[in-house]
Amino acid sequence: MVAEKIDGKLISSSLRLNIQNEISSLKILHPDFNPKIVIIQVGDRPDSSTYVRMKLKSCAEVGIDGELLKYPADISQDEMINKLNALNNDKSVHGILVQLPLPSQLDEELITNAVNVEKDVDGFSELNIAAVFKKNSKLKIVPCTPKGIMYMIDYEKIQLEGKNAVVCGRSDIVGGPMGKLLEKRGATVTTLHSKSSLDQVKFFLKNADVIVSAVGKAGFIHGDDVKSGCVIIDVGTNYVPDETKKSGQRMVGDVDYDSCAQVASKISPVPGGVGPMTVVMVLHNLLQTAKEQYGI
Amino acid sequence: MVAEKIDGKLISSSLRLNIQNEISSLKILHPDFNPKIVIIQVGDRPDSSTYVRMKLKSCAEVGIDGELLKYPADISQDEMINKLNALNNDKSVHGILVQLPLPSQLDEELITNAVNVEKDVDGFSELNIAAVFKKNSKLKIVPCTPKGIMYMIDYEKIQLEGKNAVVCGRSDIVGGPMGKLLEKRGATVTTLHSKSSLDQVKFFLKNADVIVSAVGKAGFIHGDDVKSGCVIIDVGTNYVPDETKKSGQRMVGDVDYDSCAQVASKISPVPGGVGPMTVVMVLHNLLQTAKEQYGI
Repeated sequence: MVAEKIDGKLISSSLRLNIQNEISSLKILHPDFNPKIVIIQVGDRPDSSTYVRMKLKSCAEVGIDGELLKYPADISQDEMINKLNALNNDKSVHGILVQLPLPSQLDEELITNAVNVEKDVDGFSELNIAAVFKKNSKLKIVPCTPKGIMYMIDYEKIQLEGKNAVVCGRSDIVGGPMGKLLEKRGATVTTLHSKSSLDQVKFFLKNADVIVSAVGKAGFIHGDDVKSGCVIIDVGTNYVPDETKKSGQRMVGDVDYDSCAQVASKISPVPGGVGPMTVVMVLHNLLQTAKEQYGI
Repeated sequence: MVAEKIDGKLISSSLRLNIQNEISSLKILHPDFNPKIVIIQVGDRPDSSTYVRMKLKSCAEVGIDGELLKYPADISQDEMINKLNALNNDKSVHGILVQLPLPSQLDEELITNAVNVEKDVDGFSELNIAAVFKKNSKLKIVPCTPKGIMYMIDYEKIQLEGKNAVVCGRSDIVGGPMGKLLEKRGATVTTLHSKSSLDQVKFFLKNADVIVSAVGKAGFIHGDDVKSGCVIIDVGTNYVPDETKKSGQRMVGDVDYDSCAQVASKISPVPGGVGPMTVVMVLHNLLQTAKEQYGI
């Protein structure tokens, strides 16, 4: 078997176009409709700058007004909270995104919870998390990466009910909500994590129909580890040395693509898989919050 | 192998005694310390009346002031919310417990979320749920049944790290938080639910080191289904016909005790297992909220 590639670039492009069209139509119907996101970056981490730039560019492409607020790395917690409160109260702002990670003097949980739940386009505030985890809750804003993965799974018409799903990693942003979203759709989910033994990892991977890996280890999953015909979604972003690249390195996922592609039925690559889905889901969430705030 | 019985009655009695002693000491140290719970019962369901009576009796035994507010089955949602707000603002009340289930005109989620998070001794409000589910959150108030089960597991010195745990059932009150609490302690957790196939149920049960069953089906787990030496915690409360009883029925769990006891290493019975632990955890949570509100 040679796996079909799940093309996150293609899927995200088509969704981005839908979002762009919907915003254009809404602007015609409601001339005052002007969806706006504010992105807050604290300090100057180069990776954060790259992500922020990508997000702002995507926003501009679909007709979302994007503003970047950059604060010095030594901003105090009180000052951050004050800034967030002002943005929470600013009716012209429909989404607030605090680029993580934050410098150590800032309590990430406290800061993400300070974003008004209706403007929390990252879906990281406690009330949005709780809605994902409660069985019968109406979903509010779903974190972008797991939301993007569910979109890919639906796009590819991957069956979940009665299937064994394995999520590798249990972060609050990816692994945790991912497991719950798969479970809500009928999969029987096992979450592997740093305290799982090697034997456990091997056992559950080998019996999985759907694998979502978000552990951040290059080569974590090899073709020998997985079941024939399984579906693999690779969330890892790791860098390995590569002399052929100008930067001397190359981005890879958690999955050894070539060996897994011989065994799996579908597999998402890195780059070009989950990454572009995550970015487009920021837009999707912002469109949702803006529509709610405009009451349309 | 003949399994050792996990004696919930004994474990809960010893914890109840600790709570009683702590409250006595606190009342001596702080003469104004008067922990109080208000239990709200809507309508007249006989099972609810039994649970409420048990809780009030337990409160009295340890020195917690318990008050029962009974409302008619047709109370409106607005009226319920108003009553809850008054209790939220009443400084003499340290815990509020709304006995579930509620009549259908009341939105259970809305009502449980209306209880102030600091007085939510059931741990059902969204912010308490979110704290259980977020990886690094400081736990606030943990729902009584999963909290009681974790206490039993610790009391019995059951190892979780590197073990396969299977939770049967995914309710917001038991299965959901249970899986997360086991995972936080290092177990690799699979949750089985109504959409899991029979094959999946058999496969995961047979490979489980620790099983927590909360599906509400008598005879759901049989000795043939489980691995030698596993630990089984039975949360089920089911009634089966029994002519030798005056009531014509008898309470059993999800687990066929006799056959499982031949295979498992430890097993909690029904009655006398999880049930008494759940009740004592109401007291434990109330003591926690009262101490926080008194600032001691």
